[in-house]
Order: sequence, then structure tokens, then C-alpha cells
Amino acid sequence: VRAGIIGGGVIGAGWVRLLAAHGYDVRLFDTCLERSVGAGTLQEAVEGADLVIEAVSERLALKRAVLTEVGALAPADCLIASSSSSFLPSLLQEGVAHPERVLVLHPLHPVELIPVVEVVPGAATSVRAVARARNLLVNLGKSPVVLRREVPGYIINRLVAALFREAIALVLEGVADPAQIDLAASKGPCLGWAVQGPFLTYQVAAPGGIEPFLEHLGPAFSAIWRDLSDRQGLSPQVIAQLSGAVAGVYGTHEHCTTEAERDEALRRIMAATL
Amino acid sequence: VRAGIIGGGVIGAGWVRLLAAHGYDVRLFDTCLERSVGAGTLQEAVEGADLVIEAVSERLALKRAVLTEVGALAPADCLIASSSSSFLPSLLQEGVAHPERVLVLHPLHPVELIPVVEVVPGAATSVRAVARARNLLVNLGKSPVVLRREVPGYIINRLVAALFREAIALVLEGVADPAQIDLAASKGPCLGWAVQGPFLTYQVAAPGGIEPFLEHLGPAFSAIWRDLSDRQGLSPQVIAQLSGAVAGVYGTHEHCTTEAERDEALRRIMAATL
Repeated sequence: VRAGIIGGGVIGAGWVRLLAAHGYDVRLFDTCLERSVGAGTLQEAVEGADLVIEAVSERLALKRAVLTEVGALAPADCLIASSSSSFLPSLLQEGVAHPERVLVLHPLHPVELIPVVEVVPGAATSVRAVARARNLLVNLGKSPVVLRREVPGYIINRLVAALFREAIALVLEGVADPAQIDLAASKGPCLGWAVQGPFLTYQVAAPGGIEPFLEHLGPAFSAIWRDLSDRQGLSPQVIAQLSGAVAGVYGTHEHCTTEAERDEALRRIMAATL
Repeated sequence: VRAGIIGGGVIGAGWVRLLAAHGYDVRLFDTCLERSVGAGTLQEAVEGADLVIEAVSERLALKRAVLTEVGALAPADCLIASSSSSFLPSLLQEGVAHPERVLVLHPLHPVELIPVVEVVPGAATSVRAVARARNLLVNLGKSPVVLRREVPGYIINRLVAALFREAIALVLEGVADPAQIDLAASKGPCLGWAVQGPFLTYQVAAPGGIEPFLEHLGPAFSAIWRDLSDRQGLSPQVIAQLSGAVAGVYGTHEHCTTEAERDEALRRIMAATL
């Protein structure tokens, strides 16, 4: 099976490794990088492909331009996926030839390790394309989550953005530093959520299940919800303040834990949750 | 060391097991339950205690009444902790004798397993009481997270409430069912967060660290933030709809995974993250 990957950043390179490990004939095109699997032109990466995955930078105009070019060059029955993490697939497939074969496949970094990949159909996506994507992911050992309808950020990045917005507010308001907030999340609720998601957690742990839990703690949740951050953006000043606070507790990117150490822990955790 | 626990629900019973396992002489008082460690009266549970933990139902008036009674009966140098999950400690210590010894210790269920316990001082809490609470938790093998100032829901339940509010909205808006949302969270970002909290995740994984990450993805986060749920409460109809959706995918509380199975997975995960 032939796959073309457009964009050689962390997500594109992750797709390349995942697909190559499963026997795909993978060609990567990136305007900036020379890679061993590299194609000289986008056309070389796309021609004759059964699957093309766009993984360029998260800018709508760029992704649309790339997808339009892919659509013009790829075989008519090629499945075309964008690895966007937030844009509506309806906007991404607009103007692409045969838009029924276009959808979003949103993996997490590191692509080879994290099981979940979101499958998000746009208005023009065919049921057949969704089924193909789901089968493809299952054959890659992934856990597809298919959305019934598109929303900005899909499921995962809406949950992430909600939690991260509040984590940002707690740093900016001086409640705790980023390391304490990371600790509270990481060795607290996230341990439980790595075993069971939030709905199942309450259904199992609360006496009587989620219904009496919500009846009992609804007022407590409401009081917190009314007090949560409703931040809508990040100014350069806020970015500098947050980045300084993170570097202050962890050191700079270069001096931090390595990705290899994290991946080792991730592998152990996934073996433990099976 | 003598400890009195007031309230024998899941949190109170968890404190009893944790403290007893660490050699404390524990007495539990609960108005509803007879237990082997049970005290006949609140006074019996509290008198001569070095530590009293209130773990009654999450209702402010009830907690205040219990804490006031505890304050009147406990030795003057007894550390008095509420296991509230959201109320401001300043409100809980109001009217309690020697309020400088009163603070919140917020553990997660199951108390014996989850490492993090939040330590939240109120306006009247002494620095000494905070230090005692921190030492006590470290000696119990816990990871204390001490807040610099009190906020409703502290750190953990603000992060939980932010994520859970959005999870609720995704079910109610028909984007996915509770099992798909649980899967997206559990086998997606929560795996990573069980290894590293959100700030460290970006500092390690993003090329260049969190600063270029926020500069690049700030607009994407902002677009999602503007679209997130701003729910402020839960009507009986919404509770019934959510509970029905959860029971529809998982079965009722009685037919769900057991807590013992979850605890086994939790133990394996914690061994894996060490």
C-alpha cells in the first residue's frame, strides 16, 4: 500500500514511522527537509498513492492550498486526510477535487505511541471514506474515535483546551506554579482518567453511580463553573509570562526531560492499562 | 498518634484505612454507620486527638457545624482538616475555636492509592499548620500540593470541572457518546498527562518548548476557547439525560467494572510512572 505524507514535522514524521512499521510504501514531501524517505516534489509523494496525509503547519490557508494540490494530483480513489488538530474538515475539503474522500485524521504526539486517533468527517465526506479511515486505523493498531459531527477542536483538543485554559489562569492568578499544577493533574485525576474516562469514573466510583453523584455534587460543580477562566486569547505578554514561569520550574526546552524518557514511561503505562 | 475521622463515606473510610496502615490510632465517628473502628460519639472520636479530619457530605452548613463542634472538643493543638473538595477554607474555619489550626486537606478517591492531596490554607490558617499538614502527608507517602491562596475548587477540581463541563456539552450536543469521549480522553491526552502534566508536556514535546508552541497555536486555542461550553449549572433534566447516556453505553452502576478492577489498573499505572 502506497502512502504520501505532506509535511515532515513531529506529526508527519510520526505518521511516516507508523506507516512504514506496518509495511506501507511511504513517501514524504516537505519543503524544508531532506529525509531518506523524501520525495522531490509533492507530485512524487502523491502519485499512485492509496492514502495521502497532510501534516503541514496548523494554518488554514496553507492546509487548504496543500489539500487542493493533493486533490488535483492524487488518484480519484485515494483517501485524503488532514492531520489538523482543530479546523473543521468542511473548510479543509472545500475546493478539493472529489471532496467525499477528504476527512480529518487527528493523531496525538507521539503518533506511534498514543492509541487514539480522531476521525472527523466534513459535510462532503462520504460514509465510505469514514469506514475506510476507521479500518485503516484499526489495522495500524490504533483506537479510532469517530465524531458524529464536526466541531472546532474535535473532542480531544476541546477537552485539552478547557483544562489548559484553567491551568493557565491558576498560574497567572498566583494560585500555584506550573510544576505544582502539573503535579496536581498528573499524580491526581489524570492517573484515574488513564484507567477510565471521566464518565465511567463517576459511574463506577460514586455510590449509586453518576446520577446520584451529579445530583449531590451539581451545586459544587456549578459554583466552580461560574468561577472558571473564560480567557479567549493569549497576548504576547501572557505567553512570555507563562513561558518564563515554566522555564523557572523546569528549565528551558533544551534542559528538560527528554522525549525518549517520556516515551519509555508512556510505553510502561500503556502496558499497565491493557 | 491519635486521629479522629468524622464521616464514614468513601473519603472518610479511605482516610481511616490510610492512617491505620501507617500505625495511627484511628477513631471514626459517623452518625449512620457502625464500624469496627467506630466511636460512639463525636467527642470520643475527637478527644485527645493529634489530628481530626472532617469528611462529611459536601454541604457547607453541615461541614461548618461539624468543624465548630470538633473545634470545641479537640485539644487546642490538634490539627483540624476538612476533606472538602471545593469550599473555601476561610468559610470552613469561621467560628471554629483556634481557627489557625484549621485547613483543607483534599484527597482523591481512592484515598489510599492516588498520591496527590491538596493542602489549602484559609485566611486564619497558620504557617505552622500548613507545615504540619505537609509533613504529615509526606510521612503518609503522599504528594502534597500546597496552594498559595484559596480558590473555589482548589486546583484539582477546577481542572476536573473545566474538562468535565466540556465533556458534558459534547454528549448533550450529540458530537459523541460518553464511551467515545471517555476513550478519547483516556487513551489520548490523559496517558501523556499521567507521565507529565500539561505545562511540562509542551515544554518537552514542542520544538523549542512551550513559548514557540503558544505563539504558534495561540490562535487555534483561542478559536476553541471561544467555542467551549460556558454551562453554569445542571438541571434535573440534564442530569437524567446524561445519566441515561452513561447507563446506555456502560450499564448501570451495579453492572459496571468494579472498583477492585480499577484499583488493580491504578496500582499498575503508578508502578509504571515511578
